[in-house]
Amino acid sequence: MTHTRDFDRETAVVRRAGEPAVYDTDLHGDWKVGKGINGGLLLSVAGRALAAELGAGEDGHADPFSISAYYLSTSAAGPATVTVDTLRRGRSVSTGAASLRQPGEDGTEVERLRVLATFGDLDDHLDDVRTSAKPPRMPPPEECVGAESAPPEFRADAPLLGRVDLRLDPATVGWAVGAPSGKGEIRGWFRLPEGREPDPLLLLMVVDILPPVSFDLGVYGWAPTLELTTHVRAKPAPGWLRVVHSTRNFAGGYLEEDAEIWDSTDRLVAQSRQLARVRMPQETAR
Amino acid sequence: MTHTRDFDRETAVVRRAGEPAVYDTDLHGDWKVGKGINGGLLLSVAGRALAAELGAGEDGHADPFSISAYYLSTSAAGPATVTVDTLRRGRSVSTGAASLRQPGEDGTEVERLRVLATFGDLDDHLDDVRTSAKPPRMPPPEECVGAESAPPEFRADAPLLGRVDLRLDPATVGWAVGAPSGKGEIRGWFRLPEGREPDPLLLLMVVDILPPVSFDLGVYGWAPTLELTTHVRAKPAPGWLRVVHSTRNFAGGYLEEDAEIWDSTDRLVAQSRQLARVRMPQETAR
Repeated sequence: MTHTRDFDRETAVVRRAGEPAVYDTDLHGDWKVGKGINGGLLLSVAGRALAAELGAGEDGHADPFSISAYYLSTSAAGPATVTVDTLRRGRSVSTGAASLRQPGEDGTEVERLRVLATFGDLDDHLDDVRTSAKPPRMPPPEECVGAESAPPEFRADAPLLGRVDLRLDPATVGWAVGAPSGKGEIRGWFRLPEGREPDPLLLLMVVDILPPVSFDLGVYGWAPTLELTTHVRAKPAPGWLRVVHSTRNFAGGYLEEDAEIWDSTDRLVAQSRQLARVRMPQETAR
Repeated sequence: MTHTRDFDRETAVVRRAGEPAVYDTDLHGDWKVGKGINGGLLLSVAGRALAAELGAGEDGHADPFSISAYYLSTSAAGPATVTVDTLRRGRSVSTGAASLRQPGEDGTEVERLRVLATFGDLDDHLDDVRTSAKPPRMPPPEECVGAESAPPEFRADAPLLGRVDLRLDPATVGWAVGAPSGKGEIRGWFRLPEGREPDPLLLLMVVDILPPVSFDLGVYGWAPTLELTTHVRAKPAPGWLRVVHSTRNFAGGYLEEDAEIWDSTDRLVAQSRQLARVRMPQETAR
């Protein structure tokens, strides 16, 4: 069976007839990284169900302002359900909870992800922009490093690399050849290969698309996310996105990973932070 | 009636007999700021109920690793209940949800706060610390500015200033005399006046104790929190804490506010980020 790349179809949720606030989806194996489905992709799926639920009606709120995800178990390719619980409908924002579940090995449902989120209307935002953060400086996409340059064993462990057009700044890929910078920063360009332009729900996936920033500190191995919170601050303009991952506090076997997403007009459109567990060298050696 | 200052008593939760996972508490008016109870204090209360629930038993997890709070309505002094829902008990961490409710004006319960959190055991953390963030440099507490220097109308609007020993770095209090630095940073020393030493549950309050960082950008008025996520990364050592609030993205009528808490051994013990709504000058003028 051929698979036509289509982010919207792959994150689609279908409201279950007769069961309000329950949505069915089918997680595609293309979005795997390590053992499970990419955490950002799951967040986009949950976000889509929340948008359908909180965005319904004339006074609905369809844009994520803030969304916090707690990862409970490793998700697999295949069917999943998202159940949304509306906590508050307000004038300017609404808040909901969402739970993503899959049938476990014994057939009973297992929760993969629990989410809290506040949605609103990004078009309501004031024009005032006083962002003091500066957009990253890096070479143009055609001078950056695509996934085709990654080692085959790395790509085999991360099928999602074939699903996105990600070009890393050569200054932040030393880790791939055993020479991490030690600064704790990885940055790159992002777009979907099928040409679909970015929107707030895509940003929820993009905040988690770069390799773990711990690679740039010379600590390899996937870094499973405990918690990931994203603030979407504006609708992104069409074109390439720039993504910057960084960390300031790698300690005790955990690290915080901050992501910023900048759009083609130099607007900081999303900020995220996650707490991830890192396998330390002494653990790997055991 | 005299009131003896006691953070532990003021954040105490009592498990309701016969109703597992329901805790009663009484929010003290001393912790008001603007119209409601301080969001950090509420987070400490919710954290205490989560610690009681997730920390129970031999394999319990009593320390917050990550806790995300979504603020739904303005809380008031008086009775409140916290209901905890355990989502997953794991070997190294456990995850739960908590809901803080109060009787509304018509007597029916109104949800103030919904929380998701992952708890573990901070003593299990590895010794490896590679934090690249640097502790803030500021004058000693006795050369910093205490709440007694705040304008009386400001103190009247923030009773909690009488409940904490907070000393702001003179370099970041220009806003109090109409000369904000424009950098978007406020920092200071913190301790409880009753001499109680810091612990992880106190940190949940301290992340939200400084004035809104928007003051340093010359935008006054309280900045209500939509969402606040805190990562507790280590148990704080006894002594003064240093707190730094900063923002990089003040735009569209919202700002992200980052807090770092450093302990007396120069360890970065907590990081938090919140999304807050700011009243812009044009709004204030309307």
